[in-house]
Amino acid sequence: MAAKSFSARVTVTLKRGVLDPQGKATQSALGSLGFEGVGSVRQGKIFDVELTASSKKGAKEALESMCEKLLANTVIEDYDVVVE
Amino acid sequence: MAAKSFSARVTVTLKRGVLDPQGKATQSALGSLGFEGVGSVRQGKIFDVELTASSKKGAKEALESMCEKLLANTVIEDYDVVVE
Repeated sequence: MAAKSFSARVTVTLKRGVLDPQGKATQSALGSLGFEGVGSVRQGKIFDVELTASSKKGAKEALESMCEKLLANTVIEDYDVVVE
Repeated sequence: MAAKSFSARVTVTLKRGVLDPQGKATQSALGSLGFEGVGSVRQGKIFDVELTASSKKGAKEALESMCEKLLANTVIEDYDVVVE
């Protein structure tokens, strides 16, 4: 099967309940800058990946495998893969 | 006007053309792990923000102001605000 190109966005976020000191620091900094009403900030990361695969399903499976092995720490992080 | 609670996701990505050594390192690591067909990886960050504002429009404007002042470096980064 001919390989096709796909663009995907992988979103990695901390699981609910995991402390996020980086987010807390951002929240505190927003308060110092005068922004009111910010109840919480939680920080995460994204990976915009261009890849070739035989199908959209194959691309998604490859990306999920990448998350399990490298992109996310599944003990404390959740991931979400969207292939365009 | 009564303040309402909003959940928002702010996505910050490097502008096109800005070098992304972190993404390059991730791409290289994926190659080392045996993942084939990865053409490029670009890394970004997200902020999941809970905030109160008088309206959805007000929440979006506040978040855009936060991006301009703190969350994004607008010289090299783009941001996108989605209020739920």
